[in-house]
Amino acid sequence: MRDVAVIGIGMNKWGELWDKSLRDIFTEAALKAIDDGGVDHIDSMYIGNMSSGLFVGQEHLASLLSDYLGQGPIPATRIESACCSGGAAFRSAFIDVASGMNDIVLAGGVEKMNDIGGDGATFALATAADQEYEVYHGVTFPGLYAMMARAHMERYGTTRKQLAEVAVKNHENGSKNPLAQFPFKTTVEGVINSPMVADPLTLMDCSPITDGAAAVILCPADMVKDYKNHPAVKIIGSGHATDTIALSTRDDLTYLKATEIAGQKALKMAGKRLSDIDLCEVHDCFTIAEIIVLESLGFFERGKAAAATEAGETRIGGKIPINTSGGLKSKGHPVGATGIAQIYEIVNQLRGGAGERQVKGAKVGMAQNMGGSGGSTLVHILEVM
Amino acid sequence: MRDVAVIGIGMNKWGELWDKSLRDIFTEAALKAIDDGGVDHIDSMYIGNMSSGLFVGQEHLASLLSDYLGQGPIPATRIESACCSGGAAFRSAFIDVASGMNDIVLAGGVEKMNDIGGDGATFALATAADQEYEVYHGVTFPGLYAMMARAHMERYGTTRKQLAEVAVKNHENGSKNPLAQFPFKTTVEGVINSPMVADPLTLMDCSPITDGAAAVILCPADMVKDYKNHPAVKIIGSGHATDTIALSTRDDLTYLKATEIAGQKALKMAGKRLSDIDLCEVHDCFTIAEIIVLESLGFFERGKAAAATEAGETRIGGKIPINTSGGLKSKGHPVGATGIAQIYEIVNQLRGGAGERQVKGAKVGMAQNMGGSGGSTLVHILEVM
Repeated sequence: MRDVAVIGIGMNKWGELWDKSLRDIFTEAALKAIDDGGVDHIDSMYIGNMSSGLFVGQEHLASLLSDYLGQGPIPATRIESACCSGGAAFRSAFIDVASGMNDIVLAGGVEKMNDIGGDGATFALATAADQEYEVYHGVTFPGLYAMMARAHMERYGTTRKQLAEVAVKNHENGSKNPLAQFPFKTTVEGVINSPMVADPLTLMDCSPITDGAAAVILCPADMVKDYKNHPAVKIIGSGHATDTIALSTRDDLTYLKATEIAGQKALKMAGKRLSDIDLCEVHDCFTIAEIIVLESLGFFERGKAAAATEAGETRIGGKIPINTSGGLKSKGHPVGATGIAQIYEIVNQLRGGAGERQVKGAKVGMAQNMGGSGGSTLVHILEVM
Repeated sequence: MRDVAVIGIGMNKWGELWDKSLRDIFTEAALKAIDDGGVDHIDSMYIGNMSSGLFVGQEHLASLLSDYLGQGPIPATRIESACCSGGAAFRSAFIDVASGMNDIVLAGGVEKMNDIGGDGATFALATAADQEYEVYHGVTFPGLYAMMARAHMERYGTTRKQLAEVAVKNHENGSKNPLAQFPFKTTVEGVINSPMVADPLTLMDCSPITDGAAAVILCPADMVKDYKNHPAVKIIGSGHATDTIALSTRDDLTYLKATEIAGQKALKMAGKRLSDIDLCEVHDCFTIAEIIVLESLGFFERGKAAAATEAGETRIGGKIPINTSGGLKSKGHPVGATGIAQIYEIVNQLRGGAGERQVKGAKVGMAQNMGGSGGSTLVHILEVM
């Protein structure tokens, strides 16, 4: 396998983008990545998207987008793995370059979620859960994560306030990210007193419905010198694992097995330990998700991540800065784009370009992107070259 | 890149499978492929599926299916490229093995199309066309292909009878395929006198709505000796190309540019000429599609494939046997599974296992799988080892 680097990144301002089509949003982010990478063509592309069929009535997405990007007739493939479609697209692009099949490859992610309306979006997102054994009976994602939160609180004494601290920290970070959908700060009281969604989770424990896109450009590490707009960042680890998508068939509601396995695989490939990681983007679709992911990756012992969050260990300047971008919570969560936006943040940080939210001296970063209630997980580790 | 072989194939009986769920159908085909390949595990898998979100309200498909196959926590990725989702999944599996990332990889395809009903299926399929510039104005696929047929008839004098001959030949082949959805023979009169769908295309010019799945097992060519249930078949060429998904932005309605490019790429990689190909499965979603694909691949000059079909050159025993499986027309067209089922047929033929429809002495086969009205195309070339 060839070594692979990320040489370009692009992302648009996320939010409710009523005046733009899915193809406009993607093209905006992709052109930024192409410009940032200084490339004059791409050889193939992979698009992470969860459910454009349900959200906007459009499948066959990769061909559509390669055409709108002016890159047809290149090979273009859409990847779906629920909310980690972006991470999975990044991995496919990585394998494509590593194999020698293609050199300059774009990995993008896009989702246009608002057009369908609130009920439609809730149904579309619920297709990431088990339709026949979960959704049919009426459960959707806030309910599934609320059950995980209740189980974690019961077993480990995790408190309501500690969950809220995740949102407070991520909005603090997001307030420094000009591309975030909700770049405002909040407080523990603000989170707890926001409208109840699924007890114990309130509105401010939940990531939002977002329109947005992100894209990155990959090439063989030995070609980086030809495209030297920025410090290049090498992909040193890629881990991908699956679990049951139905919560009811899991051994343990307070742990994410696929996240643990994907994290261990990525670390092994990278030849790194967790202590080598300078910052990490994790999949905080709900506040409880960030807590359980941090324990499943091993950054904290089981049952200890909530207290560590309360103590500030996951803030910028803390033991391990988590979700410097603002995370899904503040930055937004256009599901297919989220995994690519995590890579955008890590590359931006490792280049030293993150401005007010920069982690000083960051050399190695990790991104963890998760589908559904943890039925699939991608973990990538990147290091500045 | 490592050389890659196909060592196992599996497929279920296609049709209207009201008593089986999508997960049942896939698992049945996948277990057959695993058994056929003689492998005791798989390292990763890729699932071709066009629109399970719209058809059965289920995304996050690859994780669900790896779980139901008893293969979690392996990496599992769903690939979507409309009606060539299967071909694209096969290519991703090929690249995965070729890269060295994984050894034993399953490429599967599945679609459960009947549950949603006829109008629902027509809408879901139409999401492979351009939603904003085609579908919004009321056109669906029979109409798009009817326009291509009219243009081809006008330019080259292609006749109604010649189109019908495609269906007659494919049903003749399909009548010898026990897994086909419609394994009956038909006649030119039977095709022409069937109910009109979109002039000049009648019901019997159109591929059906189908529930079905297929799966194949790939491994590095140098590991074939460890899994020697059958003659192994090597993947010697893979071509993937895209075009505009909207017909209105094409230069020429009577030609498929992405098919030409993908075919040329596959031949170049394989180091073969068209005259080396002993049989070919092509994407006959409508009778006119087979005619235009054969011309775009170069098997016949432009405007000559219809007469060649009428003269029997594409029958088993003819110059180049096309769609020995019965094609999409007779075998059925569960859109995400079709590309994998084409590989199933080619491998089965190259092993000499196709029974009554065997092409004698076949050594090299090609499969052409196409999305929408030709907005994406995959071409693979396989050779018996």
